Amino acid sequence: MDEPPTIPIDKLDHISIAVPSLDLASKFYIETFGCEVSDPIDIPNQKMRIAYVILSNVKIELMEATGPGSTITKFLERNPAGGIHHFCLTTPDITVAAKGARAKEIKVIGDGVSHDNKNLFFLHPKDAIGSLIEIEENKKDI
Amino acid sequence: MDEPPTIPIDKLDHISIAVPSLDLASKFYIETFGCEVSDPIDIPNQKMRIAYVILSNVKIELMEATGPGSTITKFLERNPAGGIHHFCLTTPDITVAAKGARAKEIKVIGDGVSHDNKNLFFLHPKDAIGSLIEIEENKKDI
Repeated sequence: MDEPPTIPIDKLDHISIAVPSLDLASKFYIETFGCEVSDPIDIPNQKMRIAYVILSNVKIELMEATGPGSTITKFLERNPAGGIHHFCLTTPDITVAAKGARAKEIKVIGDGVSHDNKNLFFLHPKDAIGSLIEIEENKKDI
Repeated sequence: MDEPPTIPIDKLDHISIAVPSLDLASKFYIETFGCEVSDPIDIPNQKMRIAYVILSNVKIELMEATGPGSTITKFLERNPAGGIHHFCLTTPDITVAAKGARAKEIKVIGDGVSHDNKNLFFLHPKDAIGSLIEIEENKKDI
């Protein structure tokens, strides 16, 4: 019998792109692909401002730094033009997911709550084949 | 009245991850997330071997180099552990998409046909806010 997965997942919620200018990036996705892009959302405690490109099956999160020392600033120092930063998978229960990751010695980083009140953490790229993967709770009833 | 988009798109088809070992990466996605992963597909003319992680709404393409000089080899020289390489949006008509890109002076690279016979090209990251974006024809009738 197969073992249950370490971290049960539902779907890919979004991919996240670090961008030098949120306004220019939003304009690019609107004009190039005809996408709907959300209004900017300020996240002061993470020194970033984001907007969502709404596709039919997933979202693309555009992330701009709003102060020194943010993770986006550090990423843009290595990739000044911007680039794909991480992707996000949803899980039905964040506690089960975190317990599973720790049991398999997958390093969990940045656990906390999103701007829209979803529980989340990230898997360290060293334990996830080089990709930064966000795991976000897919709240259904609360 | 709004201008029509440069490149009309339908959805995000897949994200693509360069990996040092396709077997280990497939095992990671199966065991960690309980995902279904396709059998490996060899693409000799691109010196790579791929497999698809099947999620409910998108696919994750895992790409391994099978010879020196492939784009994956070059990517892994900069990112030895692996990493997110590009993402792919589908378009209803590749000719319209390519014409649109060229009219707006967005550099088109790597135009050709996929292993499963879909027409495609890539937008150069310098004209796409730092991301490598694949545009693939979403064949419906042929």
